Amino acid sequence: MAKIIPSSDIGVKINKWYELIRRFDSEQAEQLKQEIRTSLDSMEEDQNLLLYFSLMEFRHEVMLDYLKPLKEGKLRANFSELSKEIDEHQTHVTGMLEYYYHFFRGMYEFGRREYIAAISSYQKAEHKLSFVSDDIERAEFHFKMSEIYYHMKQTHISMHHAKLALDVYIQHELYALRTIQCEFIVAGNYDDMRRHEKALPHLERALARSRDFQNVRFIASSLFNMGNSYYRMGDLNRALDLMKESISLFDQNQSDHLRRSIDPLYTAAQILYKQGKNNEALYYREECMKRAEALQDDIHIQKTIFLEALYLRQDAEHIKRIFHFLESSYAYPDIEELALDTAKYYNEMEDYEKSSMFYGEAEHARIYIQRGDCLYEF
Amino acid sequence: MAKIIPSSDIGVKINKWYELIRRFDSEQAEQLKQEIRTSLDSMEEDQNLLLYFSLMEFRHEVMLDYLKPLKEGKLRANFSELSKEIDEHQTHVTGMLEYYYHFFRGMYEFGRREYIAAISSYQKAEHKLSFVSDDIERAEFHFKMSEIYYHMKQTHISMHHAKLALDVYIQHELYALRTIQCEFIVAGNYDDMRRHEKALPHLERALARSRDFQNVRFIASSLFNMGNSYYRMGDLNRALDLMKESISLFDQNQSDHLRRSIDPLYTAAQILYKQGKNNEALYYREECMKRAEALQDDIHIQKTIFLEALYLRQDAEHIKRIFHFLESSYAYPDIEELALDTAKYYNEMEDYEKSSMFYGEAEHARIYIQRGDCLYEF
Repeated sequence: MAKIIPSSDIGVKINKWYELIRRFDSEQAEQLKQEIRTSLDSMEEDQNLLLYFSLMEFRHEVMLDYLKPLKEGKLRANFSELSKEIDEHQTHVTGMLEYYYHFFRGMYEFGRREYIAAISSYQKAEHKLSFVSDDIERAEFHFKMSEIYYHMKQTHISMHHAKLALDVYIQHELYALRTIQCEFIVAGNYDDMRRHEKALPHLERALARSRDFQNVRFIASSLFNMGNSYYRMGDLNRALDLMKESISLFDQNQSDHLRRSIDPLYTAAQILYKQGKNNEALYYREECMKRAEALQDDIHIQKTIFLEALYLRQDAEHIKRIFHFLESSYAYPDIEELALDTAKYYNEMEDYEKSSMFYGEAEHARIYIQRGDCLYEF
Repeated sequence: MAKIIPSSDIGVKINKWYELIRRFDSEQAEQLKQEIRTSLDSMEEDQNLLLYFSLMEFRHEVMLDYLKPLKEGKLRANFSELSKEIDEHQTHVTGMLEYYYHFFRGMYEFGRREYIAAISSYQKAEHKLSFVSDDIERAEFHFKMSEIYYHMKQTHISMHHAKLALDVYIQHELYALRTIQCEFIVAGNYDDMRRHEKALPHLERALARSRDFQNVRFIASSLFNMGNSYYRMGDLNRALDLMKESISLFDQNQSDHLRRSIDPLYTAAQILYKQGKNNEALYYREECMKRAEALQDDIHIQKTIFLEALYLRQDAEHIKRIFHFLESSYAYPDIEELALDTAKYYNEMEDYEKSSMFYGEAEHARIYIQRGDCLYEF
């Protein structure tokens, strides 16, 4: 008969496994997971430890869903299975495990874009945060809070949590990716506050760190985000250079390059049309369309058709039909942006009737954006 | 020699005093305060108790600043004096007292409209919230959080705290005013999300409660807030009736009636001009102007001149000068609203060039609103 392994030994290994997950070290994490799974068979009975294992397995899958997404909308991590398992074990989840339970559930709901459900789980976790003594784990919590509030445009609260997370990560070289992600969130919040000049230093730091770690995907994302800030500041030349640079880097990085390159391609085309360089724009518009079709990404397809409808044909009726389509996909932020561009374009052409009409369309989209935020019932 | 009073006796009285403050019972609170102050002379030495007294004195003044405001901008509560006193006592503030210290400071900063400073103090208080065992005091904390986040347009986080506070207050008849204030915040958040139909039931509940307690000021505020929701929903007739009702109630209530009646007067004038009832509008516009002048309220003076410039004279140049003035007072939300009204008005008059221009002005103001939110340095 095999020797019985004390559960505390396995507990230590699960902690180590979690560390690898948080560092996005998927290879070593996978290896350790298999090792732990084998030793579970020889472990002394310990329901809490089995639960800890199940929670971490779930967290492992949340990481994989981030690093190596499956087909659009599909997730490896499955909360209802975890929940069933917990019920079967009839374990009463307390303390640190309760923290993990709510926190991981929040991450899972966030991945499904169920933001209100995610916030509710995160808040339950927050009440148990006192059980967490590890600095990095507390930073992880604040990072996830800053991330979700950024997505929900709750800028101040997102900034608050981003700062708490960043203060910790910056002291730990091993968590470079999270440091970069924090800088992206801080910059994104500044962009939302139209303080692009304050976003840039954060993006430059993110770029430098990404280069230190030779992470091509993050270098490309830093360049794209910087380009976006310059675009919104009106510095079109600088924005265009950065878009081009980020496209060529995304294209070097095989996995996911179609999806990631489409936004810089689109912005490059937008910029060139705004500069009246229609011939140069053609390449980016066509490349954008090709990739959007390969991805069956209807929103980018319609947005690309819009560029032609406005800048080449000034076909207001067609533009209205495109907005109508985007509306049916709830792409209101896209409509707001493009309708404003259209209104300003017609204003410059001194076609004020169309200008006024498209300003009205932008206004209409903005009301839907504000309404869309509301998911409460009380 | 007088009998020495144990400090614990006085501590119990200070708790009672705080209860009266939280219930806005300024008369009884004042009486008890004087009683406590007299007994302090005969009290055994206790630095913590003296500090508790000073903190509560400060909190008392914060209440008075809310109930009976002094002249615009002036506050009774003075944090630097309290802070000096604490330094002189050389007391190390811990536990529950530390909670009060940060929480009251947050309320004070909020009263001065120093929102970032207030949030920072509230957050320090939150870390000590575990020392607070009293339900009502925890509700008080959540109420203040919901209030500040509402002012900063951080809708979701404001809603979260408002719900936590409301759940407690609703069970305590004595805290009727706070219940009503919570309903106002919930409704205000719904209005910001353009869910006016969800705001109304909360305002109707607030109205019913205000009537139960025969509090004229809160009845009038409930009616005004309801009118505002109907106005923004486009139900102008209903909005007008509610504005008129709230004006007559504010006017019954002597203290502060000029300041409080000015917004419903202004909205009534706006509605009547939009309905083309220029004669009827005249009374409200003139009354609004009279009160704005009495208050030396330049922003309302200019906004009232705007009504005439747009609806009676269609004088776009004058309107632009008014917006220029409002800009110098940072009244960007007013500019956004009035510029949109102007753009839509000219669109209906088929003067598209002016319509497009004023849409552009609204857009410009919106950028400043978003930028104004940014008070961070990191």
